[in-house]
Amino acid sequence: MNMIRIAVDAMGGDYAPKEQVHGAMLAIEKIKDIEITLYGEKSKIEPFLTSTERIKIVESDYVIDMGEKNPIRAIKEHPNGSMALALASLRKQENDAVVSSGATQALIAGAHILVRRMPGFKRTAIAPMIPSIDGRGTILLDAGGNLDIRPEHMLQQAYFAAVVAKEVLKREKPVVGLINIGTEEGKGRDIDKEVFTLFKETDLFEFYGNVEPKSVMNPPCDILISDGFTANIVMKTMEGVAKGMGEILKRELKSSFTGKLGALLAKKSLMNFKKSMSPEEIGGAMIYGLYAPVIKAQGASKAYGFYNGIRQAADVVRSEVFPKVAKYVAETNELSKNEE
Amino acid sequence: MNMIRIAVDAMGGDYAPKEQVHGAMLAIEKIKDIEITLYGEKSKIEPFLTSTERIKIVESDYVIDMGEKNPIRAIKEHPNGSMALALASLRKQENDAVVSSGATQALIAGAHILVRRMPGFKRTAIAPMIPSIDGRGTILLDAGGNLDIRPEHMLQQAYFAAVVAKEVLKREKPVVGLINIGTEEGKGRDIDKEVFTLFKETDLFEFYGNVEPKSVMNPPCDILISDGFTANIVMKTMEGVAKGMGEILKRELKSSFTGKLGALLAKKSLMNFKKSMSPEEIGGAMIYGLYAPVIKAQGASKAYGFYNGIRQAADVVRSEVFPKVAKYVAETNELSKNEE
Repeated sequence: MNMIRIAVDAMGGDYAPKEQVHGAMLAIEKIKDIEITLYGEKSKIEPFLTSTERIKIVESDYVIDMGEKNPIRAIKEHPNGSMALALASLRKQENDAVVSSGATQALIAGAHILVRRMPGFKRTAIAPMIPSIDGRGTILLDAGGNLDIRPEHMLQQAYFAAVVAKEVLKREKPVVGLINIGTEEGKGRDIDKEVFTLFKETDLFEFYGNVEPKSVMNPPCDILISDGFTANIVMKTMEGVAKGMGEILKRELKSSFTGKLGALLAKKSLMNFKKSMSPEEIGGAMIYGLYAPVIKAQGASKAYGFYNGIRQAADVVRSEVFPKVAKYVAETNELSKNEE
Repeated sequence: MNMIRIAVDAMGGDYAPKEQVHGAMLAIEKIKDIEITLYGEKSKIEPFLTSTERIKIVESDYVIDMGEKNPIRAIKEHPNGSMALALASLRKQENDAVVSSGATQALIAGAHILVRRMPGFKRTAIAPMIPSIDGRGTILLDAGGNLDIRPEHMLQQAYFAAVVAKEVLKREKPVVGLINIGTEEGKGRDIDKEVFTLFKETDLFEFYGNVEPKSVMNPPCDILISDGFTANIVMKTMEGVAKGMGEILKRELKSSFTGKLGALLAKKSLMNFKKSMSPEEIGGAMIYGLYAPVIKAQGASKAYGFYNGIRQAADVVRSEVFPKVAKYVAETNELSKNEE
């Protein structure tokens, strides 16, 4: 068996290293073809590490704060920090993927500096899974806030997502939808119209057309794409509404005796409801277009959520998503060179 | 008492004219200083009209379909349709405000053609109220999908919203927040940075700064503003998540006996929960920057929701929102002429 080597930033996250270490042990138990390297402080990790089967620790000397204001400097000035060491191990081919629940901006910056882009891939994208009514989830991109984008870049990103959807999520024929303010062709800004035209003609994936976020939780597609500003707004609005509705529901149920009693009886249903909106259940966000997979698990990850991030990383490596996309990108770049 | 004259498009909406007529009668009963003119077909309205106190009917000969593909043509070709007649009555000063739950795009197009803009107001905006955790609601604009916008236009729109917030919603010192992908100054696209700079210096309203949609339901402000594309995406994402979460909750509660029993006991709490996310409770969306108020009630409005639209229209007229904004716009236009 070819072992998949996962680098875990054991120190990043709201509940690190405890939940990261527990998540790693859970992954080892459930996934037989992985080995894990925990990057972190031995003295803080060891109290939680009850088994060392296929797990080793590499000592680190720094943790990037979750609210770090200058992530680029933090990464550069602390090459032996847990996140930097984990990321750097990819380029050295010591590991196949990184999972971290550390500060998002630091992870993105660190990935660009230490892992670097896949040759020919123009703009990396952050792709979280967002919840859907049917529980299968939808890939959203680019949630990373990258504002500088062209339709050709979005085509590469959408293709990457389609490969992930097919190979990892096992969607037979992945369908891509363009987030827009109306469903008809011709709606939206110039970039939206250009992307529509480009996607309509591609045979890289099936293009559904425009999708209004009214159907963000039951979209007619596996992948929802927009520029980094818009998709980030969609993601954060979903988060805001899920949180807001959760709070209102809790308040209303607590406001009367029958409400409280009803909630007690329906406890399991309410737990499932809560879980269906939780990113923990689905896994982390992946950075598309790097040299190797980097998965961002939620900062507030508990062991199970973090385990899901590791599982996702192992799935991506096992199904060879990155080599497949790299091959396509190399070929299309070769083609466009010949055309010149 | 100065009577406020409300024009009601009795034929537009999924449940027209029944719910519109019932809503109008409810408004007459609850609001003493209004008179209502129902525009519609007498023969269809009269079966629901049990009182004619302060209500009269003006006969119309056409209803614009809710899914009308060419709203501009529909308005122009049917000047005696219920929506067109109601809108045209504003310019003739026969009425002070219009309330319609007819097709949104037709209402916007019709308002521009038949009501026209307030002199000097550069870009109209659609401003719905979105639900907040505290139940007070937040003004969102521009939800209308207008892509062609400049910071100065957004300043006019934000000022309009601030006057509405103060005079109609009774917020002492209305605060405006700019929807953005991060909270720090300097985040976002060029337009966002320019708006930030402009709003920071105004004394027309208090400017909070950037607001991420993570806090869309508990924002640190009374008004959330962005361009017509982004705010439309926020509104539709909220709608999609509210619908999706509602469906998941219903499914989970129905999936077990204890869930069903709990739901039965907590029925009142669950109803309140549902109501808290319903646009019916808050009122309609207003079009800012017209010659007179036009309120768009939800297409699916029932009597109570439609009544809320009428109440809102009466509040806007009574508190003289439009004359106040018109005065400001005229003065600033005079100023900028003098500067030339």
